[in-house]
Amino acid sequence: MASVAPEVEKKEEEEQVVNPWEVSAGKGGIDYDKLVDQFGCQRLDAALIDRIARLTGRPPHRFLRRGLFFAHRDLNEILDIYEKGDKFYLYTGRGPSSEALHLGHLVPFMFTKYLQDAFKVPLVIQLTDDEKFLWKNLTVEESKRLARENAKDIIACGFDVERTFIFSDFNFVGGAFYENMVKVARCVTYNKVVGIFGFTPEDHIGKISFPPVQAVPSFPSSFPKHFSGNDQLRCLIPCAIDQDPYFRMTRDVAPRIGYQKPALIESRFFPALQGENTKMSASDPNSAIYVTDSTKDIKTKVNKYAFSGGQDSVELHRKLGANLEVDVSIKYLNFFLEDDDELERIKKVILQDIRTTLYSYLVSNWAVLML
Amino acid sequence: MASVAPEVEKKEEEEQVVNPWEVSAGKGGIDYDKLVDQFGCQRLDAALIDRIARLTGRPPHRFLRRGLFFAHRDLNEILDIYEKGDKFYLYTGRGPSSEALHLGHLVPFMFTKYLQDAFKVPLVIQLTDDEKFLWKNLTVEESKRLARENAKDIIACGFDVERTFIFSDFNFVGGAFYENMVKVARCVTYNKVVGIFGFTPEDHIGKISFPPVQAVPSFPSSFPKHFSGNDQLRCLIPCAIDQDPYFRMTRDVAPRIGYQKPALIESRFFPALQGENTKMSASDPNSAIYVTDSTKDIKTKVNKYAFSGGQDSVELHRKLGANLEVDVSIKYLNFFLEDDDELERIKKVILQDIRTTLYSYLVSNWAVLML
Repeated sequence: MASVAPEVEKKEEEEQVVNPWEVSAGKGGIDYDKLVDQFGCQRLDAALIDRIARLTGRPPHRFLRRGLFFAHRDLNEILDIYEKGDKFYLYTGRGPSSEALHLGHLVPFMFTKYLQDAFKVPLVIQLTDDEKFLWKNLTVEESKRLARENAKDIIACGFDVERTFIFSDFNFVGGAFYENMVKVARCVTYNKVVGIFGFTPEDHIGKISFPPVQAVPSFPSSFPKHFSGNDQLRCLIPCAIDQDPYFRMTRDVAPRIGYQKPALIESRFFPALQGENTKMSASDPNSAIYVTDSTKDIKTKVNKYAFSGGQDSVELHRKLGANLEVDVSIKYLNFFLEDDDELERIKKVILQDIRTTLYSYLVSNWAVLML
Repeated sequence: MASVAPEVEKKEEEEQVVNPWEVSAGKGGIDYDKLVDQFGCQRLDAALIDRIARLTGRPPHRFLRRGLFFAHRDLNEILDIYEKGDKFYLYTGRGPSSEALHLGHLVPFMFTKYLQDAFKVPLVIQLTDDEKFLWKNLTVEESKRLARENAKDIIACGFDVERTFIFSDFNFVGGAFYENMVKVARCVTYNKVVGIFGFTPEDHIGKISFPPVQAVPSFPSSFPKHFSGNDQLRCLIPCAIDQDPYFRMTRDVAPRIGYQKPALIESRFFPALQGENTKMSASDPNSAIYVTDSTKDIKTKVNKYAFSGGQDSVELHRKLGANLEVDVSIKYLNFFLEDDDELERIKKVILQDIRTTLYSYLVSNWAVLML
């Protein structure tokens, strides 16, 4: 659904493309190291993970231990603030383009719940129903309905009800939020959004108008009921790395309008069942396991679609073992299986077992997966 | 304050430029006939004026009698609706860039009040404080303050309090209004707004995002509290002709999103005291008479700045008489003096008398001018 500028498209065959609407890997999968350099964000190293563990008094989340959240911007500053006894707030969001969330969608929410529990901080969750109306062929009513449906799945992740505000743009844009949208828009030229997002002159102006909508939840003054008198409160955004362009823009604008830059903590992509080389697509139901799938659906999807790292023949497989670099079952378990030792054990068994393990794990842990 | 595309700027020396942010006449003043052809609107002819008079049972307003409102789009359809006993609503607005309104600003409001009284219809008035923030070097707070100040002057025009809704964008954008903004934005490409408004790639995206904000008060569904269940109610917009580009865009989009096209009735420009060749500028206080000016201010401005149609010498003046084509005093009286016979009489006296008449008229009619 993305609009990619011609010069970006030309590069597609040789180079990876990562923006909020398109993720295409080059040969050999997404090069996350290159992405960090290209985007100009920072690597999330062991020292920083240790510091998080020390400050929160909890072991680091498996997403941190396993490098699934791997990049950041100014996370050290957020930790400095917290160490001094001050607060910050969390902001994450979702573009509601499917009936239900799939496992990939859960990743930022699971991680955000961990951060909220660990730091005891407020959280705002933006549902960009306006974005999905602008990019997909949906009516306003359908976009709003999907936002409402998705909110249920998000609520099921178990956020702190006293500290969490979930809103949809169609419902919430206005007042202080709209004032901030207009302030941001005045600081960003058309040339700039073309450079950041690859818009073309044939794109509709709804696309060009949208980036400020995703930018302004980074500023506490957009939520006067929640953060009144606290306009300099810092914001930390857990998200997948494809959202970085929005917040690069936001961080560029923030000091020019008297606001703090949001900090970021950014994840790798959760792979489609068919393999690592693309982001999951909500429009292909067999590319993902949804929270609404039955145990039977899950079994079928895992057995039929989960890309196998098995070798071409039993002989070769016995000799070489499974290729864990491309095997989707082990990648899913890497995200969801908490026990590090158990994960290592599974890696050593044959491929058929991994699949069975994934299916059993998903089915028997469906309820706790959300926690 | 306008952003004019290079191709428009190039033509400036030979051709007139009329858009919402810039009005420059070619040699010999604004060519309104050419503007009608260029914009593709229709001339407001004597038959249509007679029809208005007949349907409303009142003599036509002096702005109609004297051709000051001179162009329209689909006004005949609005009259058809009214003749059948159905209703429509009026929409006009103001960009709040000055402390107080001047006489030129009053023109659309005076005419709108006449239309509201004559047709007994609802009216919405948009104060585009967001637009002024985006185009002028103002803070959000200052733009909102000016909107509030200007609202007082507008209220003083005496609109029907039961049938009039005045709002500022910073206060009102949201909900159904924002939904319509996004619907409009999805139908208009960047190329299209460049063609209509002359934006350039160096312009900020706030400018590119704004046209839908001015478009959507044309649709009754933007005001669910006022027009609930009446989404096909027709809208008539009285405005100066420089606003036509916004509503050309709006009329183009309307049928694509299931809405009625707004109809328009469009005026000539009210001249600056210094002469007809430009629109009045709120940023030069001596170019205009403000509703807050004292009788002394008015006297000084009329005597010192009102461009004279007098000849170079007394002898020449006696021989040729004043040049009423360029004389500002007679032009002001043409807008404000109700009595046609008196206006004709004044045209025959010497120029000094015209100025005195204008000053006396303005001072003695200051209260009723608003009616």
